[in-house]
Amino acid sequence: MDKTKPLILITNDDGVSAPGIRALISIMAEIGEIVVVAPDSPQSAMGHAITTNSTLYINKISKEGDVITEYSCSGTPVDCVKLAVNEILKRKPDLCVSGVNHGSNSSINVIYSGTMSAAVEAGIEGIPAIGFSLLDYDWNANFDPIKSFIKKIALEVLDNSLPEGVVLNVNFPKLVEKEIKGIRICRQAKAFWAEKFYKRQTPQGRDYYWLAGEFINQDQGEDTDEWALANGYISVVPVQFDLTAHHAIQNLNTRKWNE
Amino acid sequence: MDKTKPLILITNDDGVSAPGIRALISIMAEIGEIVVVAPDSPQSAMGHAITTNSTLYINKISKEGDVITEYSCSGTPVDCVKLAVNEILKRKPDLCVSGVNHGSNSSINVIYSGTMSAAVEAGIEGIPAIGFSLLDYDWNANFDPIKSFIKKIALEVLDNSLPEGVVLNVNFPKLVEKEIKGIRICRQAKAFWAEKFYKRQTPQGRDYYWLAGEFINQDQGEDTDEWALANGYISVVPVQFDLTAHHAIQNLNTRKWNE
Repeated sequence: MDKTKPLILITNDDGVSAPGIRALISIMAEIGEIVVVAPDSPQSAMGHAITTNSTLYINKISKEGDVITEYSCSGTPVDCVKLAVNEILKRKPDLCVSGVNHGSNSSINVIYSGTMSAAVEAGIEGIPAIGFSLLDYDWNANFDPIKSFIKKIALEVLDNSLPEGVVLNVNFPKLVEKEIKGIRICRQAKAFWAEKFYKRQTPQGRDYYWLAGEFINQDQGEDTDEWALANGYISVVPVQFDLTAHHAIQNLNTRKWNE
Repeated sequence: MDKTKPLILITNDDGVSAPGIRALISIMAEIGEIVVVAPDSPQSAMGHAITTNSTLYINKISKEGDVITEYSCSGTPVDCVKLAVNEILKRKPDLCVSGVNHGSNSSINVIYSGTMSAAVEAGIEGIPAIGFSLLDYDWNANFDPIKSFIKKIALEVLDNSLPEGVVLNVNFPKLVEKEIKGIRICRQAKAFWAEKFYKRQTPQGRDYYWLAGEFINQDQGEDTDEWALANGYISVVPVQFDLTAHHAIQNLNTRKWNE
């Protein structure tokens, strides 16, 4: 590997053939040595799932001599990062980027997102990491308007790293480049999904359910990712993997647990 | 449903037939009206995965007239909570308890845990929620020593609820009851898994990998869950689902993102 270039691990949750990761690869190829390790099939909404009770397969899909080294993996996005770091890469990468996801990972979506879980796993392993998502679920989404911003954000993180225990959740509004107002550091909006299940029957007459739902945001804060995206900004939320609600410890300590 | 008793939703990630959830059901039956909605097969390490690209099935496994109503579900622990709240229960439960997990969910394990993700999902839906785990992976683990503590913690949460946006991650040391020193409110220890993959070959000669690993804790803080458990205490960590690293926002705002 070229030691003068940063080593960049690329993954996603839509699968290695998704246009979003192809766009991300083309951008990262301009700034680093690239290794792709991505799921061999779509793994959306896998959260931080890992495969502990079954086997994992890796397929090298790039050929000898290709500029970019690519692998597909049978596991989840988090499995991809673990396999990359422990079995595939010769050294710890300088950066891990995940995405570009076809669809939003803003607000509470971060917790269900395979894209972000891959970034979080890299963060746990001490690798600066960023998840990128575009607010367009279309497989033919246009990633051109956001390419310059992705490059800028990746270079900033390569130059100055990230605070310890933090990865970035970057979401892009679906806009043409000149309509994008810039980058805003945000907090995650307090929004949620009002769940709805479609209840139908199989051809054999058995009931089944299919998850749907409506995204409800009642958090009007101008410091939130939802506000930024609705107002033409790119949202950047620092995400932590220490899940302790430190602010709640004092309250809980006032209770009589041991009486 | 009996309106004088609290309505308690019970789930887990080891599957509806696991001894851990059977123990939890027996305890909760003493204090509330019980509905069980748990995976029909083991779903450990599923993190916050949800099923969006496929069907979900629910089977009622209790009979008419049974004191406890039980369902198994084909999905993940988070799916179970969503289906319970939206399709099965007639009203929002007063408490959701998940577990008792066969094995630890302390420290960084919280992020991979299906047990805890079920509790977190309930928390997102505004339901006071607790995940319980015993530091014993054995299917025949003895849950008797921890039953009185589980009851005490559940009653405390039913009486006084929890701070907004917080669920509890409760882990029990593998000790006889009289050796358990009490309950401690803790923060999540900064520990991680030093990954290792077993690399083997299928009978057909194809390489496969199997995730293993060693848990490494270099956080010696006496306010951590790992310290509490190693010293004979039950650890209670308040867990949040706002993943924003609020402390990092100021640092990131000093950077030149828009130049």
